[in-house]
Amino acid sequence: MVKSELNIAVLGFGTVGAGVVKILLQNGELLAKRAGKKLTLKYVADLNIKKSRGVKVPKDILTTDALKALSDPAVDIVVEVIGGVNPAKKFIETALRRGKHVVTSNKEVIAKYGREFIALAAQNKVNILFEASAGGGIPIINALTKALAGNNIRRIYGIVNGTTNYILTKMYRENAELAAALKEAQALGYAEADPTNDIDGYDVVYKLSILASLAFNSHFAYQDIYREGIREISAVDIALAREFGYIIKLLAIGIARGAKNVELRVHPVMIPQRHPLATVNDAFNAVFVEGDCVGETMFYGRGAGELPTASAVIGDIVDLALHDTGDTNPALHFNFTRKKIVPIGSINSEYFVRLKVKDEPGVLAAVSKICANNQVSIKAVQQKDADSVAHLVIITHLVQEAPLQKAVRQISALKQVLEVSSVIRAGL
Amino acid sequence: MVKSELNIAVLGFGTVGAGVVKILLQNGELLAKRAGKKLTLKYVADLNIKKSRGVKVPKDILTTDALKALSDPAVDIVVEVIGGVNPAKKFIETALRRGKHVVTSNKEVIAKYGREFIALAAQNKVNILFEASAGGGIPIINALTKALAGNNIRRIYGIVNGTTNYILTKMYRENAELAAALKEAQALGYAEADPTNDIDGYDVVYKLSILASLAFNSHFAYQDIYREGIREISAVDIALAREFGYIIKLLAIGIARGAKNVELRVHPVMIPQRHPLATVNDAFNAVFVEGDCVGETMFYGRGAGELPTASAVIGDIVDLALHDTGDTNPALHFNFTRKKIVPIGSINSEYFVRLKVKDEPGVLAAVSKICANNQVSIKAVQQKDADSVAHLVIITHLVQEAPLQKAVRQISALKQVLEVSSVIRAGL
Repeated sequence: MVKSELNIAVLGFGTVGAGVVKILLQNGELLAKRAGKKLTLKYVADLNIKKSRGVKVPKDILTTDALKALSDPAVDIVVEVIGGVNPAKKFIETALRRGKHVVTSNKEVIAKYGREFIALAAQNKVNILFEASAGGGIPIINALTKALAGNNIRRIYGIVNGTTNYILTKMYRENAELAAALKEAQALGYAEADPTNDIDGYDVVYKLSILASLAFNSHFAYQDIYREGIREISAVDIALAREFGYIIKLLAIGIARGAKNVELRVHPVMIPQRHPLATVNDAFNAVFVEGDCVGETMFYGRGAGELPTASAVIGDIVDLALHDTGDTNPALHFNFTRKKIVPIGSINSEYFVRLKVKDEPGVLAAVSKICANNQVSIKAVQQKDADSVAHLVIITHLVQEAPLQKAVRQISALKQVLEVSSVIRAGL
Repeated sequence: MVKSELNIAVLGFGTVGAGVVKILLQNGELLAKRAGKKLTLKYVADLNIKKSRGVKVPKDILTTDALKALSDPAVDIVVEVIGGVNPAKKFIETALRRGKHVVTSNKEVIAKYGREFIALAAQNKVNILFEASAGGGIPIINALTKALAGNNIRRIYGIVNGTTNYILTKMYRENAELAAALKEAQALGYAEADPTNDIDGYDVVYKLSILASLAFNSHFAYQDIYREGIREISAVDIALAREFGYIIKLLAIGIARGAKNVELRVHPVMIPQRHPLATVNDAFNAVFVEGDCVGETMFYGRGAGELPTASAVIGDIVDLALHDTGDTNPALHFNFTRKKIVPIGSINSEYFVRLKVKDEPGVLAAVSKICANNQVSIKAVQQKDADSVAHLVIITHLVQEAPLQKAVRQISALKQVLEVSSVIRAGL
């Protein structure tokens, strides 16, 4: 049966929740027209309903009891924007079991339990959509699952974390250290008090596990993805990268390697300044997708923030509303092949290696010899002296990670080498 | 009733048709998995079924009789990739009337009759989708109608014609004239023997009418959109633009002006070389969409070509298959407001005006006076002498089109002015 109105319960009245409520109330007429049916906000549930959220909500729809909303048979769509695993997971499962569609922006719960949710939704003839979980306002999941569905995806990579991109942009522009840039990001609300989730790459790993699972039709556990955040990136690295024509960005990278293997990794990359991703600054995100039919495509937009993220949540609600006929098909099919993640040691990349060495003859000769012994071919070298210490920067040609790391270990054992200051992958 | 298999008839076995058939046959297994049901190619209809199309099709599904496919009750989805109005329009109407979904890549027929088709589809409880009609492989329609549906769209603009972008890129890189670049585009199959449709901006106008109608929720007839192609762009314009830090691109532009008015126009624009659109080259397309919630987004990819266009057609087929429950909702709602197109004389822009003038004193004074009298404020002037003739280039500040055009008419009447060589809008 096709309903002329769908009732929505929003669980979580934080940043994204407030954005969803704002759009539902302020653009409600537009939404009804575009969705072909009325979308009615029936509940907004949060433990704290006293706090002002910058939007006026009728008192009778505010509740501290999410289960009240989940128990109401009149609710058609549950929007979970609480974040984290508990109690989000439980609420999502309850909603699906009770035959309600779910829309969520929660990357962590989807990365961890998305596969189970999709199966549970199908059992209950409803759908769970999560566009906002992987690229903020950018409709990348929609593109992967529908518009680009005819393609074998060869590569998907890009900038999917607004916080770290804001920090790296600031470090680049102002020659600032991470700590200072982070502090400002926190003051602006771009970074949380405990920034681990962003800075150490967890957020990006969640997103890559979601995007890669859909792109490559296999389930990839987020724990299996190589992860390196931006904590070790210093102003010196960024300045030196710039001298060589590079800029440092934190990337999510997925590359098909034959029919059975995939490279999945999250780490900082020195990308050439002329690459389109080099111009993606501040809190903006951009994702490249390369398909065997469509070729190269790119999606760009705000990856975070109240209204951009809420825009994606609303997009999912409209999608559900357009297709809610009371006889719902599963809208997501992804986990139908078995693919393996290539070990990080087997990838190929260029590398930027920065060393602190004693300023004495023979250092470069010793380092070069180790590189040569490990088949690590050197593309560029730069030495800068300061007092009795010298900074030695090496940029390699494309080499395999395992021998490169072996060479780095041998170099660090040299008596003339005081410190391996950084090892950053380069090129795209 | 949810079917486990959908039968597809492809009408038109030209470039796009061959691409669709290739993907259906070569990526068939992947498609069945992603769509959750088998997608079976049941007919390929074309008047010429002898010609080789680079793909092997079982003989029994080839037919010269499109009506045979349209009459078969087993056909669920009709793919119209013939192009042009006749017989495409008739075939689409027949398919919809017989309760078959339609997917088309045909911008002309959608720009001219899309509104009627959507109504006819709704009457017959089927859908018509046309992603490939407006941005080739870029999923821009999907984004507008679903992912960005929560937004009041403020602006949509970009490069949506691969042929002219290829030509302009070639002219820019090789300092070539249009005729030479066009000839090469034709040799490569990027431009047709009669290039009017691309060169004179008709193709872009069709696409803008489709995109703007969806973005701004109103029906805009393509004939009402201001249209200027690239025929008058010369190598001199491109070289001078480059000197001033600009590059010339053919753009489709839609800008909301309050709740009731929209600027819609297609013409060459001198855009700053640092703008992201300046780096969109060759046959690539890119569309910017700015929404009140999501902010700025950008979609980039191949705007034409066999497989990129077919990729979008297949995306629509998968979308239909995912949601085909036998009780179909209309998937497109757009024509629910009445908006007017702002007359071209009322827009504001910067302008690049190139004049051929007699090399004698007083020319610049006379031209400047006319500009001042018409409130046309000048940003930059450059004069280059060659024999007894001089080229005078003026770049204006932001001014209204009507007084600018009046000033140009008065300038062209000056006895020292031999020719108004070009007037090109600038800035973004």
